[in-house]
Amino acid sequence: MPRPLRSIDEYVSGIRAGDRVVLGQAITLVESARPEHQAVAQAVIAALLDMPGNALPPPTLRVAVTGAPGVGKSTFIEALGMYLTERGRRVAVLAVDPSSTVSKGSILGDKTRMERLSGSDKAFIRPSPAGESLGGVARKTRETILLVEAAGYDTVLIETVGVGQSETAVHSMTDVFLLLLLPGAGDELQGIKRGIVEMADLLAVNKADADRVKLANQARAFYLNATHLLPPKPSGWAPRVLTCSAQEGAGIEGVWAAVEEYQTLTQASGYFAENRRRQAQFWLHEALDAGLKSAFFGHPLIRNQLAALEPEVLAGRMSPFAAAEQLLKKLTIDQ
Amino acid sequence: MPRPLRSIDEYVSGIRAGDRVVLGQAITLVESARPEHQAVAQAVIAALLDMPGNALPPPTLRVAVTGAPGVGKSTFIEALGMYLTERGRRVAVLAVDPSSTVSKGSILGDKTRMERLSGSDKAFIRPSPAGESLGGVARKTRETILLVEAAGYDTVLIETVGVGQSETAVHSMTDVFLLLLLPGAGDELQGIKRGIVEMADLLAVNKADADRVKLANQARAFYLNATHLLPPKPSGWAPRVLTCSAQEGAGIEGVWAAVEEYQTLTQASGYFAENRRRQAQFWLHEALDAGLKSAFFGHPLIRNQLAALEPEVLAGRMSPFAAAEQLLKKLTIDQ
Repeated sequence: MPRPLRSIDEYVSGIRAGDRVVLGQAITLVESARPEHQAVAQAVIAALLDMPGNALPPPTLRVAVTGAPGVGKSTFIEALGMYLTERGRRVAVLAVDPSSTVSKGSILGDKTRMERLSGSDKAFIRPSPAGESLGGVARKTRETILLVEAAGYDTVLIETVGVGQSETAVHSMTDVFLLLLLPGAGDELQGIKRGIVEMADLLAVNKADADRVKLANQARAFYLNATHLLPPKPSGWAPRVLTCSAQEGAGIEGVWAAVEEYQTLTQASGYFAENRRRQAQFWLHEALDAGLKSAFFGHPLIRNQLAALEPEVLAGRMSPFAAAEQLLKKLTIDQ
Repeated sequence: MPRPLRSIDEYVSGIRAGDRVVLGQAITLVESARPEHQAVAQAVIAALLDMPGNALPPPTLRVAVTGAPGVGKSTFIEALGMYLTERGRRVAVLAVDPSSTVSKGSILGDKTRMERLSGSDKAFIRPSPAGESLGGVARKTRETILLVEAAGYDTVLIETVGVGQSETAVHSMTDVFLLLLLPGAGDELQGIKRGIVEMADLLAVNKADADRVKLANQARAFYLNATHLLPPKPSGWAPRVLTCSAQEGAGIEGVWAAVEEYQTLTQASGYFAENRRRQAQFWLHEALDAGLKSAFFGHPLIRNQLAALEPEVLAGRMSPFAAAEQLLKKLTIDQ
């Protein structure tokens, strides 16, 4: 039997008090497909966002961490998370991984992969929601960011696999984009699409340890050169290329110093805040476009009429525009 | 004072009788932005398409003719049009040129450029509708195709400039795609985007005359090689590369023979009819998507509410998804 829902006030005050159990339950509502869960989730988010000026949380930092499978993302995130929590930061780790539709959570699904970090009371780890399209996963992750930030997590690390379209979604919900790479200079692609290199603010060659230090430096030189050939970023920031070894804990400090330097520079220039506004606008229009299509094409009346008209259009007996007009007539906007 | 509209029956019977004046007036209605003109235009098209089986016109042929400015498109179309009308075909020449928004009809705008063809009673020439977006021009051209075909024009040549996105629109409303090129092998680009070369079923190096014959043959060899490197077409047709001189009337016969060969092959394989069905489906969904957005975002209620909610979302005081949901609630589908 499912646990009965709490009141909206209970969720809101629990989250504001940093109660991890209540936070986890609220995220489950965000991830739920059931309309009654969604209604509560939306009310909770609205209440959390609607705070008087000085109760707003201090600016948070949202960091994308991506890289091809095998690059050591989990080890890196654990090392970075431990580094940050030891310095007083509260760290939430989320994931965007539509492939988990099949594997039921292929990244972060097994929390034991981050044993030390998941044991810290300053860290909150949540696997990617499963059973959804990229659009669904991205939306839920963006709403989950709002929840963990309201619960006092000032640093949100969002993991994704560097092979598909999910990077674009994650790029549109983070402040800074970190790409992990493997040692080895000749291997330009590393399973990473070029567009992803262009998104990166920081590139870190991981596994720069033992006999791979030389290869890691070669990779660093290669990508340094590659980033110099890219067009300048709208942020005015020139991407950094670093090396690190998450396994040995080496270079993590340098990576984070570059993240903070990026934050300082873009906050001073106004780009940081402007970027968040643009992202909010992007998601508003994404949600409107997707919602409009799903409300229209998902409606039984439209579905039935489209199924009846389409063969007429395909056979050339009816103009596509006349058929479209007939369907669009059924749409009204009021109240 | 504008001429009063005819009755729908007058338009329909005039067009079916091949009356060029009535045809031109009906096209003007298709191109008009006024709702009362659009209503008549749609009724006329619906009546023309709704014919008992054996009254359907014989299969028509829709040919895209594109190429960079200066390649001699008008001269080529006039030469081809004369060749076809002399062989009993009835030829309509249309244009898709969104740039005419500015220039008020930069291609075909001056009919005197096709003096001989425009004097033929077997040819009908209509410049691109002006003052519109590409989507608007494309839609109007597609409806105009239906009108000229109903008026008995069995061959429709659609001219477009080979530099922008209009080729994709024209590609989605024609049976065969002809790209004109200039002599000169080294000049790979010729101002033509690679995607346009990939769309072409036939490439003709024009201006292969006088001292340019050698250059034209070089260009032919170059593009023959280039087309061999392209992935096979879904039609199963291997693109042809020919040379011609529209000015001297040389090679036009060969170009048309290749067009007819293409038609024979694709009609036999079923691709020709299948492609037309796919195009009709494409335009149905284009019209639905565009109409849906314009009905929703163009509605004053939505415009006002979006203008009120957007600043809240951008300032982070409201979730983009909650704002979208609030707007989408105003949409209903009924009847």
